[in-house]
Amino acid sequence: MRQFIVLGHDAPTTADFSLDDLSGAGRLDVLCRCVGAAVFLSHGIRKDVRIHLVLGDEYTLRFDSDTLRRLYPDERTIAARIRDALDQREDAIGHMAAEVSPGMELYRLGFEATLDDVASKGTVVQLHAEGTPLPEASLPSDPVFVLSDHQDFTDREADLLAEQAEQRLRVGPETLHADQTITVAHNWLDTAGYTEY
Amino acid sequence: MRQFIVLGHDAPTTADFSLDDLSGAGRLDVLCRCVGAAVFLSHGIRKDVRIHLVLGDEYTLRFDSDTLRRLYPDERTIAARIRDALDQREDAIGHMAAEVSPGMELYRLGFEATLDDVASKGTVVQLHAEGTPLPEASLPSDPVFVLSDHQDFTDREADLLAEQAEQRLRVGPETLHADQTITVAHNWLDTAGYTEY
Repeated sequence: MRQFIVLGHDAPTTADFSLDDLSGAGRLDVLCRCVGAAVFLSHGIRKDVRIHLVLGDEYTLRFDSDTLRRLYPDERTIAARIRDALDQREDAIGHMAAEVSPGMELYRLGFEATLDDVASKGTVVQLHAEGTPLPEASLPSDPVFVLSDHQDFTDREADLLAEQAEQRLRVGPETLHADQTITVAHNWLDTAGYTEY
Repeated sequence: MRQFIVLGHDAPTTADFSLDDLSGAGRLDVLCRCVGAAVFLSHGIRKDVRIHLVLGDEYTLRFDSDTLRRLYPDERTIAARIRDALDQREDAIGHMAAEVSPGMELYRLGFEATLDDVASKGTVVQLHAEGTPLPEASLPSDPVFVLSDHQDFTDREADLLAEQAEQRLRVGPETLHADQTITVAHNWLDTAGYTEY
């Protein structure tokens, strides 16, 4: 399984935001594009992918590609589903998720608890300017990529990540958006290990 | 310079569409994400990139990263700018562009004329399931990547492209969305040729 955790520092934690201004809703547009990059191929949905959006360090919304239904890659549709999920936030109690729709579960967990949980089932990858360039890196099993939205990791988040990380990788010389990074990571995993793909 | 031509087969050719349903507007959401993938880095705009959106084989809207102003990566903002451009479509007459805002020019040209024009200044790359895998390919100078939206190329488009193409490349074993392909192509160009990037 491939997993992605994306930190939405200013992301909404209630359903009280407008679909007409996703950028103004704590840059929810970035998180929506991350979901699209994580789960969609051109004509279908990837298998065996999970993406966890950490919303304001208060909730984590998990998308599971194998059970998602009726999701489309445009930002507004994904944002509407996030809003529906937050509408049911009262039902999320700790590790008891609110099952908000097929393939989507909302947890009342922040970054540390989510990272602890996901890290126990995979290889946490830290993306870092001094990491190993992707073409030279060994393939992690069940990789967990941890990304931040338009803001840098806080010192505490960076420390938590460094504690759990088993591999440090570098995506390239340019600093990409989180969704672009997810696309590059997928392509690396899709193609690495094949001499002729 | 890096250039991308994206065919929007069902894309609007008038300003008569709603920003609330970009998917329903001939999958304009795909084209908006292509623009974002082509021009944006995490905290800035790439240098020396042009993306040409072919709208319904009737108009071509060109974005030039070096002169773009006040563009943001969310789909709705980009779609609003496309709508503004189409509002001025009467001013576009053949190779005489309507200058719709800084870094954006609308031409009354379809795919064939746009491809002819762009091809004369770069290396046209055809992405193909039987092309050379990116890691094994030589770097094209001034590459021009030609992509289609959610639909396949028509036979005629494929023929025009095959005539102009100087290189056939394969992005990976999975069929990606056009915007994802742009991201992978950028990352390949960013990193190829560096042993340590």
